[in-house]
Amino acid sequence: MSIPDNCYTLVISCPDQVGLVAAVSSFIAERGGCLVESSNHTDLQQGWFFMRNVIDARAITLGIEGLREEFSALAEAHQMSWYLRDNNEKQRVVLLASHASHCLADILYRWHSGELHCELPCVISNHENLRSMVEWHGIPFHHVPVDPDNKAASFEQMENILERHGAESIVLARYMQIIPPSLCERYAGRLINIHHSFLPSFVGANPYQKAYDRGVKLIGATCHYVTEDLDEGPIIEQDVVRVTHSSTKDDLVRLGRDVERAVLSRGLRYHLEDRVLVRGNKTVVFNA
Amino acid sequence: MSIPDNCYTLVISCPDQVGLVAAVSSFIAERGGCLVESSNHTDLQQGWFFMRNVIDARAITLGIEGLREEFSALAEAHQMSWYLRDNNEKQRVVLLASHASHCLADILYRWHSGELHCELPCVISNHENLRSMVEWHGIPFHHVPVDPDNKAASFEQMENILERHGAESIVLARYMQIIPPSLCERYAGRLINIHHSFLPSFVGANPYQKAYDRGVKLIGATCHYVTEDLDEGPIIEQDVVRVTHSSTKDDLVRLGRDVERAVLSRGLRYHLEDRVLVRGNKTVVFNA
Amino acid sequence: MSIPDNCYTLVISCPDQVGLVAAVSSFIAERGGCLVESSNHTDLQQGWFFMRNVIDARAITLGIEGLREEFSALAEAHQMSWYLRDNNEKQRVVLLASHASHCLADILYRWHSGELHCELPCVISNHENLRSMVEWHGIPFHHVPVDPDNKAASFEQMENILERHGAESIVLARYMQIIPPSLCERYAGRLINIHHSFLPSFVGANPYQKAYDRGVKLIGATCHYVTEDLDEGPIIEQDVVRVTHSSTKDDLVRLGRDVERAVLSRGLRYHLEDRVLVRGNKTVVFNA
Amino acid sequence: MSIPDNCYTLVISCPDQVGLVAAVSSFIAERGGCLVESSNHTDLQQGWFFMRNVIDARAITLGIEGLREEFSALAEAHQMSWYLRDNNEKQRVVLLASHASHCLADILYRWHSGELHCELPCVISNHENLRSMVEWHGIPFHHVPVDPDNKAASFEQMENILERHGAESIVLARYMQIIPPSLCERYAGRLINIHHSFLPSFVGANPYQKAYDRGVKLIGATCHYVTEDLDEGPIIEQDVVRVTHSSTKDDLVRLGRDVERAVLSRGLRYHLEDRVLVRGNKTVVFNA
Repeated sequence: MSIPDNCYTLVISCPDQVGLVAAVSSFIAERGGCLVESSNHTDLQQGWFFMRNVIDARAITLGIEGLREEFSALAEAHQMSWYLRDNNEKQRVVLLASHASHCLADILYRWHSGELHCELPCVISNHENLRSMVEWHGIPFHHVPVDPDNKAASFEQMENILERHGAESIVLARYMQIIPPSLCERYAGRLINIHHSFLPSFVGANPYQKAYDRGVKLIGATCHYVTEDLDEGPIIEQDVVRVTHSSTKDDLVRLGRDVERAVLSRGLRYHLEDRVLVRGNKTVVFNA
Repeated sequence: MSIPDNCYTLVISCPDQVGLVAAVSSFIAERGGCLVESSNHTDLQQGWFFMRNVIDARAITLGIEGLREEFSALAEAHQMSWYLRDNNEKQRVVLLASHASHCLADILYRWHSGELHCELPCVISNHENLRSMVEWHGIPFHHVPVDPDNKAASFEQMENILERHGAESIVLARYMQIIPPSLCERYAGRLINIHHSFLPSFVGANPYQKAYDRGVKLIGATCHYVTEDLDEGPIIEQDVVRVTHSSTKDDLVRLGRDVERAVLSRGLRYHLEDRVLVRGNKTVVFNA
Repeated sequence: MSIPDNCYTLVISCPDQVGLVAAVSSFIAERGGCLVESSNHTDLQQGWFFMRNVIDARAITLGIEGLREEFSALAEAHQMSWYLRDNNEKQRVVLLASHASHCLADILYRWHSGELHCELPCVISNHENLRSMVEWHGIPFHHVPVDPDNKAASFEQMENILERHGAESIVLARYMQIIPPSLCERYAGRLINIHHSFLPSFVGANPYQKAYDRGVKLIGATCHYVTEDLDEGPIIEQDVVRVTHSSTKDDLVRLGRDVERAVLSRGLRYHLEDRVLVRGNKTVVFNA
Repeated sequence: MSIPDNCYTLVISCPDQVGLVAAVSSFIAERGGCLVESSNHTDLQQGWFFMRNVIDARAITLGIEGLREEFSALAEAHQMSWYLRDNNEKQRVVLLASHASHCLADILYRWHSGELHCELPCVISNHENLRSMVEWHGIPFHHVPVDPDNKAASFEQMENILERHGAESIVLARYMQIIPPSLCERYAGRLINIHHSFLPSFVGANPYQKAYDRGVKLIGATCHYVTEDLDEGPIIEQDVVRVTHSSTKDDLVRLGRDVERAVLSRGLRYHLEDRVLVRGNKTVVFNA
């Protein structure tokens, strides 16, 4: 399902308890909200409850601020982490890229064809080579080289750009620099990476070379939120593709590009539609 | 998710309306019912609502009959089709087979290892060759040959056996006879078939030969409810496997067996866990 | 495997016979040719032999014309259909598109990033909307509207453009017009289409609507050579993607786009690397 | 393709060189051998050549011993590792199991239905629970408990049984004991294991628990030859299945069973048909 116009998305997670679905859905129904989609999940082992509702907002008269205010009381009573998004307001997503173009090109294409529900205020790269492609799409391109002797200055420059463009989420579209902890923390749960292996196989650098050397029969890619622990953040989406003994390392790279862009674009879509709920190092993904 | 002990499953479909999730979940919560799983789907195009709840029954004091009685009023008010199952009572499923063993062997194995939540009161076949395998599992085997000149008599005999064994659902595990309309109707939504092609490709007989002749690059299997219209019933589950130019027709048959048994066992599992809701010629399958 | 530089590809099909592999590989070895890849297949049922050799040409002193001349005798003796390609000469592929951009954009991207081993002399479309995208890649764009009252004139114009650009192969990248029989015949085995269903399911128009109405659990795409019989030509490649009851018809279209472009780009790649051998209505695809 | 009757399989690996395909295929053709299947692969990086030929033996008059003798000279000249198998003689495969039945049951079923081309002279287990299932198939069952204080004695007993039954290959069908190095060495390239994860993810014990804790979105299984380095041997086959946040650890175990048995039975089939060539820690698998 896609996100229809004129609707709100309400996302909740809290300790499990009898009556949570009833409480939330009654709250919505009593205010005239019609459920377009409603998903929930209880982690019985952890005793934790997750819920996502897409609400047709046209019959809700008190507006999103009014709804937020009234919901606060319910939320507090059940110790909920929650947010309510107006889907008419598109999220502002800044893309970070390096030299490789495939993931960036794929996201730009999907955005340009109207498939991704977001704004792309700018692209930041530590290389110049993708400028023309980005600018053809009418998107500002910022070149922020990363000085190995003064990375702090480079990332400060980047943070300024992020702030200026009002970045709500960040996508590392094969951005090949390690993100400083402060940025990881500031954008926790909103900073998406694509790793070019089926994690936890082949963490770190050169996963295709490692996969080639190990002689695996499938290679994969992993879309995850970035945390301080490299390649260890919560996994959003993964997929694989079959390879054979006749696949060279270059073939793995080529086949891997297709999996990377597919996995990243699915992961980003789930994120933009508020389908991904993080708890600890795992995700709930309401994608069906 | 599997079905835990001591729980009820409540399955509902009805015209869509504001407040249905709230009404049903409030009804359950007010009687102490804790939701183990709760899924719903609104077909916006058809204006139809589907819901499945797995309810921890241990805190519900009025018992399943009491719960049914009290729910009737709510159900009537919203024109619901519904049922409430006590999961401690296993469904009675009769398997029909012919000469081919792979689907039957797979279901018997899964049942024997405790993976399928059902009773298998007996197996009926129009051939004798699978008797020993069935009886090793401690399940009665009935040989009901189908007389081409008097099919009616054969199916009457079969219906007697089904009745005697209290069959609630029937699985055609590569049973190679056409089921008479009366039986299709009597077991509507409870009579499961596995077709050895990716429907609607290659309806009718000899799908592997047809697939071989057409030179397709994938072959598949389809698990569906049987209706009077051969190979046209609501699809529960499908899957495919890759083949190549070097696959002979016998290879297709061999590879197809694995897809058939995988698709049938998944479809049967969804059915037994009340995850499949039929409307018209389509299904809603709450399997995630 | 990709196609390395400085090599020839020799493709053969002929009636089967003892000693064909020996005869061909000896011919190559005696002239100093080193095999980079060598695949063969015997269709035992049809008694037909297929072979593809990629030959390192650097040690072959007599040149490609010399090699062709000497091979003719062997070929004639065994009634071979065959050709020998110099891989340093890239095939000239003309792309035809209509309004939808996804397949065209994908091929352009892969070509631009050096992944597809071919020349793209021009793009022809019966719409104007994709001009800017094509021209950004430095490729001429020809707008040839199809006049419903005079299709013959439109296709004559198109044939002129094809000829002027020396088109060796044609790709219908979601080109939504029926190709006239004369063009099908002229480009037999070199005219590639992507059909937006898992053929032979849902032939003809609106396959996604048909798939939605039938309630299938997987949708697919088929890359095939175009023949006069619409959607009946030899299949090169197919793939599928899972859908659910919650997938709207628009979701099928969106998910289908990804399968279409993946299947088309794989099929085109196989074609460009001379991996696809057609016999009757079936293909041998040496892709492993 | 399966293995037809009355044929030999010739398997070769050696340093690469111009003319190897010609030399081998000419050798076969000159003796009247018709190629049913012929595959080869050159690892350009390592400079190593791999070949597998299935030869229709009916027109070869000098018999398998004569053929072996005559081929020796050619083999020596090219430093070939090679063997020639008479496919009328089925390999003798001993199965080792512990408590879990799914892989064993699957192999027994495929063997019983004629799908696996081998003899199963016996099953050895360190538990008693699978005896009845094995014996129903008419196969001797040996209970060899592994004494934690004297493993050497247990494995000596096992080696005696293997010898008595003329074991050519061994399959660890979820056998949960570590194989001593002497046995690994003696059956190098003939001792097959199924690991219940997508290696190199989750080596060692409890991979499903580790996969659950990491929150992966796919789980897998790996069929590999056993070497002294646990879980590090050459990979024959791998596959994965999708899981979600709603999959409990028990669901992973259940879904994993299906992947394990599918991957093991494919790997075993490739092994029995001499499709797997090992070099270093990697395999060439001629399965297309």
